Amino acid sequence: MEWMKISGTACAFVWMLAAGPAVCAEAMFSWNEGPAKESILNFVQDVTDGAGDRYVPPGRRIAVFDNDGTLWAEQPVYFQALFAIDRVKALAPQHPEWQGQEPFAALLRGDLSALLAGGERSVAEVLAATHAGMTTEEFEKIVSDWLGSAKHPQTGKPYNRMVYQPMLELLEYLRANGFKTFIVSGGGVEFMRVFAEQTYGIPPEQVVGSYGRQKYEVSDEAGPLLIKLPEIDFVSDGPGKPVAIQRVIGRRPLAAFGNSDGDFQMLQWTCSGEGARLCLIIHHTDAAREWAYDRASRIGHLDETLAAARTKGWIVVDMKRDWKRIYSGDMIDESTAH
Amino acid sequence: MEWMKISGTACAFVWMLAAGPAVCAEAMFSWNEGPAKESILNFVQDVTDGAGDRYVPPGRRIAVFDNDGTLWAEQPVYFQALFAIDRVKALAPQHPEWQGQEPFAALLRGDLSALLAGGERSVAEVLAATHAGMTTEEFEKIVSDWLGSAKHPQTGKPYNRMVYQPMLELLEYLRANGFKTFIVSGGGVEFMRVFAEQTYGIPPEQVVGSYGRQKYEVSDEAGPLLIKLPEIDFVSDGPGKPVAIQRVIGRRPLAAFGNSDGDFQMLQWTCSGEGARLCLIIHHTDAAREWAYDRASRIGHLDETLAAARTKGWIVVDMKRDWKRIYSGDMIDESTAH
Repeated sequence: MEWMKISGTACAFVWMLAAGPAVCAEAMFSWNEGPAKESILNFVQDVTDGAGDRYVPPGRRIAVFDNDGTLWAEQPVYFQALFAIDRVKALAPQHPEWQGQEPFAALLRGDLSALLAGGERSVAEVLAATHAGMTTEEFEKIVSDWLGSAKHPQTGKPYNRMVYQPMLELLEYLRANGFKTFIVSGGGVEFMRVFAEQTYGIPPEQVVGSYGRQKYEVSDEAGPLLIKLPEIDFVSDGPGKPVAIQRVIGRRPLAAFGNSDGDFQMLQWTCSGEGARLCLIIHHTDAAREWAYDRASRIGHLDETLAAARTKGWIVVDMKRDWKRIYSGDMIDESTAH
Repeated sequence: MEWMKISGTACAFVWMLAAGPAVCAEAMFSWNEGPAKESILNFVQDVTDGAGDRYVPPGRRIAVFDNDGTLWAEQPVYFQALFAIDRVKALAPQHPEWQGQEPFAALLRGDLSALLAGGERSVAEVLAATHAGMTTEEFEKIVSDWLGSAKHPQTGKPYNRMVYQPMLELLEYLRANGFKTFIVSGGGVEFMRVFAEQTYGIPPEQVVGSYGRQKYEVSDEAGPLLIKLPEIDFVSDGPGKPVAIQRVIGRRPLAAFGNSDGDFQMLQWTCSGEGARLCLIIHHTDAAREWAYDRASRIGHLDETLAAARTKGWIVVDMKRDWKRIYSGDMIDESTAH
């Protein structure tokens, strides 16, 4: 069947030409049949059916996605933290004092526990050393170079091949049905923008995240520059997520996707709006293909939100049950293995 | 000629189907022929010509517009200040103490000078009284109701009919050529979003402005709410404009449009990027049809930026010379007069 071969990109064009109900469900090929997939398809059917009473015009179809643990993996620790650690190692020769200074000394020994134990102050020190004191353009290049060469310590995969193939298909499916897709993450906005467009098809202006202060400066030699300062300005996590959504997007989303208690308020805010709404949690249940964790995990801690899902009718994706494959990188491996 | 009749909306569809060079220059019908219009057309021609060496792909065609004095009028004082004054009057019965308390007492007598003389502290007090202590949705409704009934004290026109018809055509022309159009204004982001989509075709998520702090709260009765707090968080003016652009849009614009020294850094940041760039200033020169002001004006003060335009090759639009008509409202008056 020709229809079955429609690619994600072709789907996008289908939408532009069609004013009708949901299209391109075939693009969700890495999702097993079951209640999670069915809920997504029903929701999209509802809001795109011009004859139905839950119809929402295309411009108002806003979908927000957490990033760490929702679009790409987050174990054994957030990938941005792994970037910061690699950066500390790269900068260590210029900072001999770090050998006797925590949390740097521990990080240089490969010990993450000092960073986690040191709490906010340790994190702020590492962020200041690795994410500030340079221009925005210099930072972009550092992240881009890192992504091009760094490998995950356990899987050996490049980080941007540890994105979830079913979620890529979901993003594409929503866009094919007139949704505008945003990231709303606790991660650093300038870190995510380096790969979000190429990896997820989400342009920089649709990436919302935490950020530090910046200073506009005009240098005699280099002209105008934006300098990243070592002060955190806003953290887009927990109750900060609806605030960030209002500040940047300016309207309540129709659909929200998360995986941890840091996403609770974003899901709550989204699904307390009127009309058709979709709230969905990725539950990491697959220790064989990825990781299995929830209530006991420090990273991606999922407790209150999982309980709320049951009472509020939010969809819980069971990775092991609902996903045929996990990583986009695995897709490439499959096709090149032939 | 059929081609000449193409409307703005039809132009947008032309672009989606055409990968070729600039389209829909005919839409700029309120612009007189001259160097300003010619510079705009040449710039769009340059960045849309796939065979040229200044070509920029559609996703990267970002254009940023100041609002007050650039898209709509700003005299005798910013319209958002006129909203705040009307709001003080509407709330006065609940605040008998305002009769003896500046700047409120002066505003209730119709005297703006106390507000301007009181500086930041006065402005902050009026903002706290009129823009905070309510939910985001309540604020939207207040602004929307005001826009639907309020009239400008001098022209007697509704405020959203005091938008510049040539700028509406420019917005449409840029969008027809694959540009994504943003507002980047010192005005309040939540104030502008109420009318930006209907008035300018700019959706809420493409409006960047100043904002106050907000608090996420869950009420037993009303569910989750975002409460506007009486603290200014960020002012998107002067050097704050490039910072806001980086924070929200995440890439340097190709084109920037402003009218005052508060736009200087936005123009400087935009036009110091590589490749084809367009920076343009609206110079208010038409006392008969609008207002004439620049260096001596408190509102829309234009001095340094006008001088810079000459040395940097920024385009200066002389309203009197370059625009056939001023307000979108005048267009409606013309057509209904027949």
